[in-house]
Amino acid sequence: MNLQLALDRMSIPEAVAMAERVSPYIDWIEAGTSLIKEFGMAGIHALKTAFPEKVIVADMKTFDNAKYEFELCYQAGADVATVMGAAPPVTVGTCMETAERFGKEVMIDLLHTTEAQRTALLQHRKAIFCLHVGKDEQEYSGGRLQTPGFAGFEGERRIAAAGGITLETLPGLLGIGPSVLIVGSAITGAADPERAARELRRAVDQVKEVKRS
Amino acid sequence: MNLQLALDRMSIPEAVAMAERVSPYIDWIEAGTSLIKEFGMAGIHALKTAFPEKVIVADMKTFDNAKYEFELCYQAGADVATVMGAAPPVTVGTCMETAERFGKEVMIDLLHTTEAQRTALLQHRKAIFCLHVGKDEQEYSGGRLQTPGFAGFEGERRIAAAGGITLETLPGLLGIGPSVLIVGSAITGAADPERAARELRRAVDQVKEVKRS
Repeated sequence: MNLQLALDRMSIPEAVAMAERVSPYIDWIEAGTSLIKEFGMAGIHALKTAFPEKVIVADMKTFDNAKYEFELCYQAGADVATVMGAAPPVTVGTCMETAERFGKEVMIDLLHTTEAQRTALLQHRKAIFCLHVGKDEQEYSGGRLQTPGFAGFEGERRIAAAGGITLETLPGLLGIGPSVLIVGSAITGAADPERAARELRRAVDQVKEVKRS
Repeated sequence: MNLQLALDRMSIPEAVAMAERVSPYIDWIEAGTSLIKEFGMAGIHALKTAFPEKVIVADMKTFDNAKYEFELCYQAGADVATVMGAAPPVTVGTCMETAERFGKEVMIDLLHTTEAQRTALLQHRKAIFCLHVGKDEQEYSGGRLQTPGFAGFEGERRIAAAGGITLETLPGLLGIGPSVLIVGSAITGAADPERAARELRRAVDQVKEVKRS
């Protein structure tokens, strides 16, 4: 299981510094949507330059103009880029093709998708499917990650989970067998980010060991 | 009727230079989603600095983190910002609240929304509703702006129309009585952008006169 650190609502130097502090405990580093919209491709480039050995995720949340946007972030150094599952199917398909051409990856963000959309998206066998409760849903409507409603994805597809994940909520997510756990403010907003990251790492590694035994 | 110039797939200096060339013929200037994702808020700031008297539209395509993203672009100089109608309702609502607080405007992008979503969005009486055929739908699936399916919006709400609009397709859109016509490549990709903008302006002004007479 990979631990992905989401960097949002901060400057590029702050993002690089935060990733450096917790680097031993995380696998993937995400340039958050707000980092991208605030500073452009420079954030992705800075993260890939500072961490060439890590997987860099560009949370592009692409909804249109897929080829241009995906080429942009792959060229800036991203290894994975996100597209909204709620986007037109042709947009998601174009993201898959662009990733194939670059030898890179697509994460399909299932935020606010219908069951019909999720079923149709299953055709993209190589994608990572991100179960996601948005920041706004968490902050204003008490939204929590719901694992039901995504039946059929487990096992056959790589799953990521995102949205207010903490050390406390982590155990409830393990049933869906995620490949990627995306954590933002539980690390970046912690009084002691290193400690928060180390504890999450330990929790994730314990799962691996349980699965092996 | 306002003519909005969408600036996409170019550098910030190119965007400012293009807007300068056609400035007499356009009312609103849009920092396109790709301009924002490529260069961040700097593009919005550059456009507002160069054109303080024009309405600057930030095509943020917000899908989450509404308060942060909208504050960001309003502070950078945007007068209008876009949110996806397909986003969680709480996100759209937060965009409306943030706009109200800043005395600015929201454009709700109806790209790939369901009829149920569009009906629910009608509650946002102050928003501008953007009928939109995406770049990907145009390029790969022959998508064209369809005015049916949006019945009930006309007259009661301000409407914008976007997606491959040209001098040739303009007349077909006038039935919906748009407040804003969004044109990108028909101007920016023309051999003679000034001439293209001037002709579109003339067509728009003729509509005004027909309506008056």
